[in-house]
Amino acid sequence: MTSSTLPPESRRSSAPQPRASWVQERTDLDRTTLRPRRDRLGHEPPPASPPGTLVIEDTRRPKIFVIDYDAEVVSEKEIQSVDGCIPYLTDDRPSITWVDVRGLGHKSTFERLGEIFHVHPLALEDMVNVPQRPKADVYGGEHVLIIARMAQVNERCVLRTEQLAILVGKSFVLTVQEEADWDVMEAVRERIRTGRGSIRERGADYLAYALLDAVVDGFFPVLERLGEHIEDLEIEVIDAKRRMSKPIHDLKRDLLTLRRAIWPQRDLVNALLREDNPLISKDTRLYLRDTYDHAVQLMDMVETYRELSSGLMDLHLSGMSNRMNEIMKVLTIISTIFLPVTAIAGIYGMNFHHESSPYNMPELDWYYGYPFVWCLMLASVVGLLTYYRRKGWIRKDDGGA
Amino acid sequence: MTSSTLPPESRRSSAPQPRASWVQERTDLDRTTLRPRRDRLGHEPPPASPPGTLVIEDTRRPKIFVIDYDAEVVSEKEIQSVDGCIPYLTDDRPSITWVDVRGLGHKSTFERLGEIFHVHPLALEDMVNVPQRPKADVYGGEHVLIIARMAQVNERCVLRTEQLAILVGKSFVLTVQEEADWDVMEAVRERIRTGRGSIRERGADYLAYALLDAVVDGFFPVLERLGEHIEDLEIEVIDAKRRMSKPIHDLKRDLLTLRRAIWPQRDLVNALLREDNPLISKDTRLYLRDTYDHAVQLMDMVETYRELSSGLMDLHLSGMSNRMNEIMKVLTIISTIFLPVTAIAGIYGMNFHHESSPYNMPELDWYYGYPFVWCLMLASVVGLLTYYRRKGWIRKDDGGA
Amino acid sequence: MTSSTLPPESRRSSAPQPRASWVQERTDLDRTTLRPRRDRLGHEPPPASPPGTLVIEDTRRPKIFVIDYDAEVVSEKEIQSVDGCIPYLTDDRPSITWVDVRGLGHKSTFERLGEIFHVHPLALEDMVNVPQRPKADVYGGEHVLIIARMAQVNERCVLRTEQLAILVGKSFVLTVQEEADWDVMEAVRERIRTGRGSIRERGADYLAYALLDAVVDGFFPVLERLGEHIEDLEIEVIDAKRRMSKPIHDLKRDLLTLRRAIWPQRDLVNALLREDNPLISKDTRLYLRDTYDHAVQLMDMVETYRELSSGLMDLHLSGMSNRMNEIMKVLTIISTIFLPVTAIAGIYGMNFHHESSPYNMPELDWYYGYPFVWCLMLASVVGLLTYYRRKGWIRKDDGGA
Amino acid sequence: MTSSTLPPESRRSSAPQPRASWVQERTDLDRTTLRPRRDRLGHEPPPASPPGTLVIEDTRRPKIFVIDYDAEVVSEKEIQSVDGCIPYLTDDRPSITWVDVRGLGHKSTFERLGEIFHVHPLALEDMVNVPQRPKADVYGGEHVLIIARMAQVNERCVLRTEQLAILVGKSFVLTVQEEADWDVMEAVRERIRTGRGSIRERGADYLAYALLDAVVDGFFPVLERLGEHIEDLEIEVIDAKRRMSKPIHDLKRDLLTLRRAIWPQRDLVNALLREDNPLISKDTRLYLRDTYDHAVQLMDMVETYRELSSGLMDLHLSGMSNRMNEIMKVLTIISTIFLPVTAIAGIYGMNFHHESSPYNMPELDWYYGYPFVWCLMLASVVGLLTYYRRKGWIRKDDGGA
Amino acid sequence: MTSSTLPPESRRSSAPQPRASWVQERTDLDRTTLRPRRDRLGHEPPPASPPGTLVIEDTRRPKIFVIDYDAEVVSEKEIQSVDGCIPYLTDDRPSITWVDVRGLGHKSTFERLGEIFHVHPLALEDMVNVPQRPKADVYGGEHVLIIARMAQVNERCVLRTEQLAILVGKSFVLTVQEEADWDVMEAVRERIRTGRGSIRERGADYLAYALLDAVVDGFFPVLERLGEHIEDLEIEVIDAKRRMSKPIHDLKRDLLTLRRAIWPQRDLVNALLREDNPLISKDTRLYLRDTYDHAVQLMDMVETYRELSSGLMDLHLSGMSNRMNEIMKVLTIISTIFLPVTAIAGIYGMNFHHESSPYNMPELDWYYGYPFVWCLMLASVVGLLTYYRRKGWIRKDDGGA
Ligand SMILES: [Mg+2]
Ligand SMILES: [Mg+2]
Ligand SMILES: [Mg+2]
Ligand SMILES: [Mg+2]
Ligand SMILES: [Mg+2]
Ligand SMILES: [Mg+2]
Ligand SMILES: [Mg+2]
Ligand SMILES: [Mg+2]
Ligand SMILES: [Mg+2]
Ligand SMILES: [Mg+2]
Ligand SMILES: [Mg+2]
Ligand SMILES: [Mg+2]
Ligand SMILES: [Mg+2]
Ligand SMILES: [Mg+2]
Ligand SMILES: [Mg+2]
Ligand SMILES: [Mg+2]
Ligand SMILES: [Mg+2]
Ligand SMILES: [Mg+2]
Ligand SMILES: [Mg+2]
Ligand SMILES: [Mg+2]
Ligand SMILES: [Mg+2]
Ligand SMILES: [Mg+2]
Ligand SMILES: [Mg+2]
Ligand SMILES: [Mg+2]
Ligand SMILES: [Mg+2]
Ligand SMILES: [Mg+2]
Ligand SMILES: [Mg+2]
Ligand SMILES: [Mg+2]
Ligand SMILES: [Mg+2]
Ligand SMILES: [Mg+2]
Ligand SMILES: [Mg+2]
Repeated sequence: MTSSTLPPESRRSSAPQPRASWVQERTDLDRTTLRPRRDRLGHEPPPASPPGTLVIEDTRRPKIFVIDYDAEVVSEKEIQSVDGCIPYLTDDRPSITWVDVRGLGHKSTFERLGEIFHVHPLALEDMVNVPQRPKADVYGGEHVLIIARMAQVNERCVLRTEQLAILVGKSFVLTVQEEADWDVMEAVRERIRTGRGSIRERGADYLAYALLDAVVDGFFPVLERLGEHIEDLEIEVIDAKRRMSKPIHDLKRDLLTLRRAIWPQRDLVNALLREDNPLISKDTRLYLRDTYDHAVQLMDMVETYRELSSGLMDLHLSGMSNRMNEIMKVLTIISTIFLPVTAIAGIYGMNFHHESSPYNMPELDWYYGYPFVWCLMLASVVGLLTYYRRKGWIRKDDGGA
Repeated sequence: MTSSTLPPESRRSSAPQPRASWVQERTDLDRTTLRPRRDRLGHEPPPASPPGTLVIEDTRRPKIFVIDYDAEVVSEKEIQSVDGCIPYLTDDRPSITWVDVRGLGHKSTFERLGEIFHVHPLALEDMVNVPQRPKADVYGGEHVLIIARMAQVNERCVLRTEQLAILVGKSFVLTVQEEADWDVMEAVRERIRTGRGSIRERGADYLAYALLDAVVDGFFPVLERLGEHIEDLEIEVIDAKRRMSKPIHDLKRDLLTLRRAIWPQRDLVNALLREDNPLISKDTRLYLRDTYDHAVQLMDMVETYRELSSGLMDLHLSGMSNRMNEIMKVLTIISTIFLPVTAIAGIYGMNFHHESSPYNMPELDWYYGYPFVWCLMLASVVGLLTYYRRKGWIRKDDGGA
Repeated sequence: MTSSTLPPESRRSSAPQPRASWVQERTDLDRTTLRPRRDRLGHEPPPASPPGTLVIEDTRRPKIFVIDYDAEVVSEKEIQSVDGCIPYLTDDRPSITWVDVRGLGHKSTFERLGEIFHVHPLALEDMVNVPQRPKADVYGGEHVLIIARMAQVNERCVLRTEQLAILVGKSFVLTVQEEADWDVMEAVRERIRTGRGSIRERGADYLAYALLDAVVDGFFPVLERLGEHIEDLEIEVIDAKRRMSKPIHDLKRDLLTLRRAIWPQRDLVNALLREDNPLISKDTRLYLRDTYDHAVQLMDMVETYRELSSGLMDLHLSGMSNRMNEIMKVLTIISTIFLPVTAIAGIYGMNFHHESSPYNMPELDWYYGYPFVWCLMLASVVGLLTYYRRKGWIRKDDGGA
Repeated sequence: MTSSTLPPESRRSSAPQPRASWVQERTDLDRTTLRPRRDRLGHEPPPASPPGTLVIEDTRRPKIFVIDYDAEVVSEKEIQSVDGCIPYLTDDRPSITWVDVRGLGHKSTFERLGEIFHVHPLALEDMVNVPQRPKADVYGGEHVLIIARMAQVNERCVLRTEQLAILVGKSFVLTVQEEADWDVMEAVRERIRTGRGSIRERGADYLAYALLDAVVDGFFPVLERLGEHIEDLEIEVIDAKRRMSKPIHDLKRDLLTLRRAIWPQRDLVNALLREDNPLISKDTRLYLRDTYDHAVQLMDMVETYRELSSGLMDLHLSGMSNRMNEIMKVLTIISTIFLPVTAIAGIYGMNFHHESSPYNMPELDWYYGYPFVWCLMLASVVGLLTYYRRKGWIRKDDGGA
Repeated sequence: MTSSTLPPESRRSSAPQPRASWVQERTDLDRTTLRPRRDRLGHEPPPASPPGTLVIEDTRRPKIFVIDYDAEVVSEKEIQSVDGCIPYLTDDRPSITWVDVRGLGHKSTFERLGEIFHVHPLALEDMVNVPQRPKADVYGGEHVLIIARMAQVNERCVLRTEQLAILVGKSFVLTVQEEADWDVMEAVRERIRTGRGSIRERGADYLAYALLDAVVDGFFPVLERLGEHIEDLEIEVIDAKRRMSKPIHDLKRDLLTLRRAIWPQRDLVNALLREDNPLISKDTRLYLRDTYDHAVQLMDMVETYRELSSGLMDLHLSGMSNRMNEIMKVLTIISTIFLPVTAIAGIYGMNFHHESSPYNMPELDWYYGYPFVWCLMLASVVGLLTYYRRKGWIRKDDGGA
């Protein structure tokens, strides 16, 4: 059912290899949920590098798609070189141009991109050197740079996030995403193609809003999936079928990742809402308020889930204590039954020489000696068990925990 | 006694099926307190939908009730189609019209509602796509949209919440609630019908205040019930009659739900109080201050209950540790009594050949050999038990925990 | 010694029943520290009642006392009917009139009170429907309503709180307290009677300050008593003489109650200090700053005690773990001594037929067989105990915890 | 080495009794670290006392020292009566007069002090009725009252704090300290005597700064000592040589005391820095910024130490769990070795009559019966131990924890 | 791989002794991760010293390096005496002079430095008396003093921090670092030498930015290394190969150190960004915004790591509980198998005299007596084990934890 968290495009995709490899790669890691180290180190330049240093090691060219539209016409095209978008930007039609760069590779492509769109070196650095913390930065009255983070979860509940940089200009939007194989924006493209809603009548700021809204809303299915996962864990913790502390720890780690993604996005939407900015119209701000609501709602969910997962750990520890009590009770009862019997039997197994003294174990000659010993043994066991029952240790429904 | 948490209407109701089914449904879930999954997923449109997308799958028409009143006259009516409320809105009497829509179904009804009241698409979306986080939004100088959340608890202490959207205009109030079978507003209707208090002399903003106040005050019986539940749990934890960690975990979950409902409602009342707004008169703000007090008091109660329920978990864990100590003490004492006896008896049960050597177990021939061994066994047991008593392990009232 | 927390009046009282019954009532509850349920439910009107609804079920008339004073003259009187205070309010002397209503009963008395003093319905509701959260509300330039909470603790450390409403006007102060049998204001009455300090020279705002200061200072003996209680618990936890987790839980509950009482009182004093208000003179504000200091100091104490009581629970759990370790060590040592002996003795208690084979237990015929077995048994026990001593399990002062 | 925390004066002191008695007194309490109750109750007047009530029970006169200085001349003198300082205040030289009152006793001395310096009754109350929360209060344009708290720790790491009230006027500073036997200001006196630094050239505000700075800096050696104590505890927790939970609890209590002392002092320095005040020159504020830095740094240390001490408790609990695991492993291994041996030996110690049936224990007649049983016993023990080794319970370095 | 955290200079260094000794010194401490005490005590002057007191005990001269540059020319030189930098400051070329003092020794050098650069005594004190809390202070319109803290971690994950003071003037930057053997600024020197980036075209404020940025970015490799360390610990905790609580405690201590270093640096960058300051140009502030982002991102990482390390401790405790449960289960099963066997065998090892009574152990004469007892023993063991299997204690994958 969580396949709906994948954008339509990737479902339609005729190239299943990248996604399959992702699932594969993650599965290997399932035991510890660790991300591959190379991945985690990010694209940070070495300390004390000059500002604007781009860190791109991959030599594969990113895919670049252009959508150019106004109320009447839409044209959509994959371009081979970054210069292919210049005609769309410089034509005399007041259309909105959305250039979507998928993948981070081929350094000179990004340097050329910076030249074409006059991107500030610090802005370009943030678009390329992932991961950045989500934020919105204004560069003069010309550009707004929004750094967002998209999230996705697969049916095994493995979380994956990706940076999306949105550079908003007067009549264009430039997006740069980390990986070419998935994003959450396909439905926005579809709205542009079909003209559903008012997106075709509005400006570049509305397109940026629509993309940001898609990113934020994309967290809902992720959190729904995690919510189901928490419910599954709850049932499992109570049934205690397997080692639970590692899955709970992994869940907490994922919730930390989500909090780090959502919290600053709430702040950036709020900043766009509050600060006066010539590039974001008053009308679009009304829509951003809706996105803000959603971001706040997501934070609520994350915080609630965090508290629930803490509670899960308590539940788990309490369950282990409880099982320990049960085990110890059984051990005590077993000992209670057999230790007195062994002791009494041991006494009458002694070899005192009967003939040396009348005091030496006369019981062995009693007519009812053996039945008497059986009674003694039964009495001691029954007596102790009755005492335990009075203490409340032995009950129908295994009480006391 | 908590039946008083149900509004009068539902008590009078001749159709007990819905409520019965709710209780029934919940009872099935009692083991894990999980909400049915369908319920939890909400009515969120898929990510990247155009703003204003309504998510209504149900095809049943909602029930619509109209109350139109001024200081002199009240008329109350259930209308079959949403167009039935147009005459009340467009008549030339300066009366207040309250249109109450119960249930979320039949998409075109809500679309028509949006047209009749000129509701902003984003506002309509929030009214319909439940759950939304409680909040108050101003749409120009025309409408204020208040999203509130009503809570109810049944006698088994199962919690249930429902969204109530209140759209306030110049001379009307439009309310949309999730389910038709219960709400907390019946007493307000009764005040309008009977003219108790000043509600009939005042405007639409006062009606909105009265509804919001009813929603907030409706949490008091819920929290009282939970407070009693906590006291019951406290007694049970101390008596340790059954597994307690799951009920405590469920309680925490409910308190999280209540916090998520009450906290933003406090904020929204505060926002209405502070922000200047042509639709909310200065006089009504004095009354909202009272509602604000109540919301703060509720938050205090929730936070207190959360701390108490954390304390309950500690109490429970400490009780389990304590019982473990008791069990181990008994095991140790049992072992202490019977192990030495068994060992000593074992020694004199050995079969060394007395005739092969004078050193081979001469005790077996002693005149007082057997009584001597009994004394030895008694002495070792009494010695150890005396040692334990000195350590303070054996006491009248089972101390040390 | 905590009897000093009771105001002189109640000590002098010739009617010891009420207090005795309080102590009595509380003692019954001592096992669980639960307040009687009736008490806890408060006097909240049902949800959706019109604002200003008074909830008074008791039919007993409250006691009403009037003190009227200026720099020269003081007159003090108990009046039977609320109308008895009208002459003091309407006389032409510029005296200050303090009307003190003790007890909440007889609805029409409070309705008449509202008429005589022109109290706003919402203000009257807050004075009567206890408990309210402490706060200060301004009603126009006419009245300031202060809701405060008085606390008292008896020698068994049972906590009891009561609401005090202080309505301040130009030349009068109206106080309403929940119960007639105790308050913290007797010393203020004494200051008025004897003219100690400057209270007789000053206005109604100074009287209100003096009452509020008495309320806040009244928490000091309560917290001192709790501080002593914490120290007693600390010693008991270390000595581990009885089950400690319940008393610690009760202590935490009391500290929560105190926090809920003191925190908003700090805020209300601060609000009176900061906000410009024609009824509170600049001079009186200097005195309120002193009250503010005390409220902050009380909050400090409560927070410190809360942390100490959390630490107590840790100490208690650690103590239980420690005792468990000790018990297990003893069990292990007992087992270590007797299990090898039993096993060795068991071997030489076997009945292999010596005559069937020279390999069948030739030890039984050895000349030093029996002494050899004793040595064997001693060696195994001493060997194991030496190993434990090396591990550090057996020490003089029971170390390792 | 911590003897440096004692001011030079007390080191030089020829009257070692007071200090010795302090150490002595504390040593008695070392078992529970409780302060003597009398001490803790403070000098708070009973609730509802008139403002300005001084609580002084001691009848011993405080010691009073005067230092009067300008850039050229310093005179220093102990005066017997408080009136002895009048000449210094009223002379026509523009010198700074520092009156230092050591000890709180002899009520009329303090009343006279209030008259001579025109101290506001609320200010005098705060100087005398210790402990007050640290703060800075302005009384008109005339006086600033600073309540500070000095701390000291002895070589046994027992903490001791004392109030210092600093009243700053135009040309004088009046200090009142709780006890005569120690303070942190001796080095400031020395700077005045020798003229080191610029103190002799500056005003009363700079002297107040210097005193406050000495108080704040006096916490550094205290925290260094506690830091060493934490390191000692860390090593001890790991070595587990004695009961550790009580010392850790005491440490937390001391850190709470220090936080309560330092936090408000940071706030008071900040208030003096920010608020415009004719008595504190702009130049002196630059110096106060340095004191503020130190106060912030101290808070950092306290918070870090608090987190470390929480970690210590975790470490301690984990260590106890670990030792429990070790004990249980040994018990299990002991049982594993001897229980099977005992059971097998028991079987062949049965007395079935061989002559009644060929099935009755024919093993007892086997030629290799006895060696066979030895092998059986060895096999069962070795088998079980091998299983444990595979599980990883038996390892060189006692792993698994 | 972490050797990249060492600046190029120290890698190139022909004097490996200092670094080696550091590693050495740390290795000795590895068992407890305590810093050498001498180190921790800092260079704080004794309490109540006059402001501006420098605490320098070392008599070795610091190394001093000067780099003087403008867009065209760079000259770089080590000077022997501090006066050697005067020519660079007083020449008539508008070049930027960076004086880098490495090491804190030789008091008169620093006093002379204060004279040459007209440093305020309080500023000089903060530069020399390490450690100070990171901060930015403005001294008139002349100087900005930035106190920063550099961090480094070696391949054994031992953390080391060092203070860097940056004094910014109109045309110079003076830096003072604690130790001569490492810093994070070599890459900045390289940028100046080679003219990479725009640093040579810009002023002293940009150089200060570049240094601060290098300091902040220098934390990334440190946190990456700690992140790897956390992942290693996670795997180790799950495998439970050694005592884990001490390493986790050490990790928490390091994260506290890093938080204390990074948090105030975030604040100081923010202060430089927000406050208007003639020495920091508007252009440089754009760059500082980037540094601010990085500082925020670092704080995010530290907080995430802190939560992960708390989770690690839970995981560890839960693992220990789990192992305890396993051990107890094995002990119970062992006891279950052998105790009944021993008891039954004991019974038939009793010596009742068969000839004294027909009731005395007739079983011993039964034809199938011995096989019957074997069956009895097997039945009791199998019965109990079946019961355990039903309880779910015995499972393939060691469930229940
Ligand atoms: Mg970066
Ligand atoms: Mg950089
Ligand atoms: Mg992508
Ligand atoms: Mg991540
Ligand atoms: Mg919305
Ligand atoms: Mg959205
Ligand atoms: Mg929504
Ligand atoms: Mg949406
Ligand atoms: Mg409903
Ligand atoms: Mg819910
Ligand atoms: Mg009210
Ligand atoms: Mg209300
Ligand atoms: Mg109320
Ligand atoms: Mg109400
Ligand atoms: Mg009363
Ligand atoms: Mg209460
Ligand atoms: Mg005071
Ligand atoms: Mg007071
Ligand atoms: Mg006081
Ligand atoms: Mg007072
Ligand atoms: Mg002193
Ligand atoms: Mg103390
Ligand atoms: Mg104190
Ligand atoms: Mg400084
Ligand atoms: Mg200082
Ligand atoms: Mg310093
Ligand atoms: Mg200093
Ligand atoms: Mg260095
Ligand atoms: Mg450090
Ligand atoms: Mg950046
Ligand atoms: Mg940077």
